[in-house]
Amino acid sequence: MQRTLFFLFLVLFTHLSQSQEYTSDSVFIRTLFDESLTQGKAYEDLRSLCKDIGARLSGSAEAAMAVEWSKQKMESYGFDRVYLQKVMVPHWERGTKEAGWFKGNDQQLHKIPLLALGGSIGTNGLIEGELVLFHSREELLAAKRKDIEGKIVFVNQPMDSKLITTFNAYGGCYPIRGYSAIDASKLGAKAVIIRSLSLSNHPHPHTGTMQYEEGVEKIPAAAISTQDADMLAEFILDQKKTIFLLDMNCQQLEDKLSYNVIGELQGITSPEQIITFGGHLDSWDVGEGAHDDGAGVIHSLESLRLLKELDYRPQHTLRVVFFMNEENGNMGGKTYAKQAKLNGEQHIAAVESDRGGFSPRGFSCDGTADQLEMIKGFKDLLLPYELHKFEKGYGGVDIGPLKDEFEGIPLFGFVPDSQRYFDFHHNENDVFENVNKRELELGAASMAAFIFLLDKSL
Amino acid sequence: MQRTLFFLFLVLFTHLSQSQEYTSDSVFIRTLFDESLTQGKAYEDLRSLCKDIGARLSGSAEAAMAVEWSKQKMESYGFDRVYLQKVMVPHWERGTKEAGWFKGNDQQLHKIPLLALGGSIGTNGLIEGELVLFHSREELLAAKRKDIEGKIVFVNQPMDSKLITTFNAYGGCYPIRGYSAIDASKLGAKAVIIRSLSLSNHPHPHTGTMQYEEGVEKIPAAAISTQDADMLAEFILDQKKTIFLLDMNCQQLEDKLSYNVIGELQGITSPEQIITFGGHLDSWDVGEGAHDDGAGVIHSLESLRLLKELDYRPQHTLRVVFFMNEENGNMGGKTYAKQAKLNGEQHIAAVESDRGGFSPRGFSCDGTADQLEMIKGFKDLLLPYELHKFEKGYGGVDIGPLKDEFEGIPLFGFVPDSQRYFDFHHNENDVFENVNKRELELGAASMAAFIFLLDKSL
Repeated sequence: MQRTLFFLFLVLFTHLSQSQEYTSDSVFIRTLFDESLTQGKAYEDLRSLCKDIGARLSGSAEAAMAVEWSKQKMESYGFDRVYLQKVMVPHWERGTKEAGWFKGNDQQLHKIPLLALGGSIGTNGLIEGELVLFHSREELLAAKRKDIEGKIVFVNQPMDSKLITTFNAYGGCYPIRGYSAIDASKLGAKAVIIRSLSLSNHPHPHTGTMQYEEGVEKIPAAAISTQDADMLAEFILDQKKTIFLLDMNCQQLEDKLSYNVIGELQGITSPEQIITFGGHLDSWDVGEGAHDDGAGVIHSLESLRLLKELDYRPQHTLRVVFFMNEENGNMGGKTYAKQAKLNGEQHIAAVESDRGGFSPRGFSCDGTADQLEMIKGFKDLLLPYELHKFEKGYGGVDIGPLKDEFEGIPLFGFVPDSQRYFDFHHNENDVFENVNKRELELGAASMAAFIFLLDKSL
Repeated sequence: MQRTLFFLFLVLFTHLSQSQEYTSDSVFIRTLFDESLTQGKAYEDLRSLCKDIGARLSGSAEAAMAVEWSKQKMESYGFDRVYLQKVMVPHWERGTKEAGWFKGNDQQLHKIPLLALGGSIGTNGLIEGELVLFHSREELLAAKRKDIEGKIVFVNQPMDSKLITTFNAYGGCYPIRGYSAIDASKLGAKAVIIRSLSLSNHPHPHTGTMQYEEGVEKIPAAAISTQDADMLAEFILDQKKTIFLLDMNCQQLEDKLSYNVIGELQGITSPEQIITFGGHLDSWDVGEGAHDDGAGVIHSLESLRLLKELDYRPQHTLRVVFFMNEENGNMGGKTYAKQAKLNGEQHIAAVESDRGGFSPRGFSCDGTADQLEMIKGFKDLLLPYELHKFEKGYGGVDIGPLKDEFEGIPLFGFVPDSQRYFDFHHNENDVFENVNKRELELGAASMAAFIFLLDKSL
């Protein structure tokens, strides 16, 4: 009887203490959101990063300024430790603004705005060639050399607007930007023009990384806007022959020394166990890298600031990382993971925000069923803030290399609403003014709450 | 044994046919979204409503044009029946643009942009008075007559940014706009100025409806922007006395004849049973009424167009209604419900979209537990489109009066993401350019899918 009573007491006590814990977690998360929405620094910090620094391509003066800005900012928030980690990064420069024209049967020139793809070689003066239109990468791959040799290839494949998560539509067209210079060069083309990877019809060409292949001649590659791509594709159909003219003097320079910027709150019970979270500090050189990935580094910075501000004492060491060079090389992510292994660090989880500063929807998990179950367990606490997606999915490019060095480490990605992302992505509209204050603040509080729950659950 | 086999067969058959139905529903909903996202008319229709018609306050020339535009549009989509329903609406006009100034100790004048609240009387020439600051409606209600008499009251209560659903924050401040002219007049004030109901800090004053009370002297009421409200509140603290000067010649004119615009697809099995869905065609007279409620009427129009386009044959009669005069009187909603009762119509459900053209989140239901359970049953089919909220909540202002005439009728509200709504609401930023194409199209498809499921479930 006594034993029964004892067990009854134990069950009751466990239940009570669990429910008390749930209540106190829920109160703390509420406080994180309140603080972010009323006293948050996220919006002003993003403004400063976008306006006082600007776009910050790896190797640029702005990227160097961004490193200084970030270190100062982290120091000003009084984190336990703030330091730089050396990273050698590729250094590509756009040079003088690109220029492009086309002309049809009547030989009249029409100017067309374009952006060299990141990593492209220049044209070494003005080049011209007959334009050959392809509607997809498959069509280009199936083409005959005689139809392409000496010409300029134009790949006009739109992203699939039917896909609800826009990143899936991006994934579908990503190989066009990545490999068209290789595909077209193998068939003898002298340059390649692609339709920008965007879901909306607007006049701003985008840029982004592209590849060359050892042994395949490098040819220049550029993107035109979705609006111009539609116009040009229609124009070509009406002409016997369309000539495209192109001048770009972008170039790849020597690799350059840069840095990841790192800040920490020391863990109380297991300081040797590290939870990493961050975004990438570098951006492309157009716009201001506001959503990509100003929002992500600011989400991460604000998370640590909020947790510190509210006197949270973490179990594990919480480490915010502003990664350098995600856009064209991921040297920051690779260096971070390698260095962590070399230092004998223990990494138990990582979280990335690199999908823009939009209204929170949830978090993805690349790990095991158990790890996924763990974050599904956070849902009840985060649903009041409209986070409903806790799904199997990608962590992020920057934290990706940790998986190779630390077996079984779960990687998590912050998932905001994706509908507007590809209106701004890698084009001149990715500016501070296109980030909404509340959406950014809700994202920062969501990251903070998620990191808090991770720290308690691991 | 045979009986057991029979029941087993019955269970299996029911299960199979249910799962087949689920599959075919799911395929049809997918088609609705595909059609909306690739061949949708919503975005172009909204552009035309905003740019070819513009803002459309009840009684204005634009409102009359909007009625014509809507009827033509519905006819062009070939609905079974398109007609107008007479509605007498209030007719308030802003007149010459309002002007306001303030001055402090040094008597230097500072101009301040303001908007008369909808329904306010004019000032009958330039008036001036000492400005008295209150931080909340409660503070004003507790004030003494001697501190207010002959002065101008300024209520500077910000919306509560901590509330995740921004409509709750709006609800908290709504009485300030609605009743401050009454509250202040009872204490002898000569005019009232309020802080605009917006969650962001920007320079655009908003407008919106306000009340007078029988037997209480009418005084002019206007709003200044959130940015200016902060500035002015700070200014007042530094001065011995702040004088506010105000000139408005807005006026209430004779009621005017206007119309609800109605389109129908006839039901096959129960044509006498009607499902109403819509938004309001009128808007305030600043901006273009793009989110409020251009998006809502376009969601509704596009829903019926999509269902017709995809050859859906409804069980019940599906009726889209563009209500007139939601903003300042709701005469469209009241007339519609009364007329429905007079005509002996059978109304079985109604759906409204009046929360902007943002990413879909779900639907609210004002009805019984069973009615709420019914829409929770739609969740599995709509979650792939990121609709996750199926909650007890408000239907909408326009459809509200149906509840009085048809006992137990369930009213549903479309729930998009609410974070940006009060950046645009009733101010000059509520323009077409601030509506995102995909978000609008996803909203329209969500409405169509919801109406389809309602039609099948009722």
